[in-house]
Amino acid sequence: MADRYFYDFKIGERFESASLEVGESDITAFASSFDPQPWHLDRQAAAASPFKGIVASGWHTTAITMRLVVDSGVLKATGVLGTGIDELRWVRPVRPGDVLHVTGEIVALEPPRSGRSAGTMRVRLETADQLGEIAMSMIAILRIPVRPRNE
Amino acid sequence: MADRYFYDFKIGERFESASLEVGESDITAFASSFDPQPWHLDRQAAAASPFKGIVASGWHTTAITMRLVVDSGVLKATGVLGTGIDELRWVRPVRPGDVLHVTGEIVALEPPRSGRSAGTMRVRLETADQLGEIAMSMIAILRIPVRPRNE
Repeated sequence: MADRYFYDFKIGERFESASLEVGESDITAFASSFDPQPWHLDRQAAAASPFKGIVASGWHTTAITMRLVVDSGVLKATGVLGTGIDELRWVRPVRPGDVLHVTGEIVALEPPRSGRSAGTMRVRLETADQLGEIAMSMIAILRIPVRPRNE
Repeated sequence: MADRYFYDFKIGERFESASLEVGESDITAFASSFDPQPWHLDRQAAAASPFKGIVASGWHTTAITMRLVVDSGVLKATGVLGTGIDELRWVRPVRPGDVLHVTGEIVALEPPRSGRSAGTMRVRLETADQLGEIAMSMIAILRIPVRPRNE
């Protein structure tokens, strides 16, 4: 993939990531470290919870989404450098065996302010499962450098 | 801590979490799984990056923040069940050896809609380092059940 910088991107442009299967042991390992609540850790307790079974931490879903966006290579030249997130919504729980992929669409591009070498890109990210059902959506706010002068 | 449900909370109420030190090996382990970019993984590459050294993935900071909120016990009875996040901002990089803690303030409470058993709480969370400098802030949108009738 050719190296792309701020002025190489267009509003409305879309990309797709690869897919990643989320195993039950991945879910419990993440939750043990970062979100130790029963519906992520214990099958019996999870069955009695509002989720009726083990589900991934929402923060695990964000982390998997990041991995898929990094691996997509669409921002390989500039890196994926977020300054913020707006309107993150966990729409549907992610369960063991779900296979996630991410669709991105550039929704805004703010050129660098005077004297700055990076602009701001807003990308709407949707993380969907193997049936195409959206599990999570958010707008990522990214710092995207302009092309270096020597390239 | 007494069990608290939706109607036991007040707008303006604040809480503080315990503290957690973020080690370099924690940073690289998280990034290897979820955010494999040079400024999280490799000292030399990180030194040449805009961060001038190893920094934690922003998603690692969100995950640590979740852990500190869960462990605070303030939502022990209801669980910490997020439906979304607004206005997440990574203000300042987290570096190896930083000791993070979280301050929460309830900024909105929307009672259950007719026939529902849970309301919505919005909590402004600020994750700060050992010097009190804010590394990250966000508004978490949480589903908080009302007290069960048999209690």
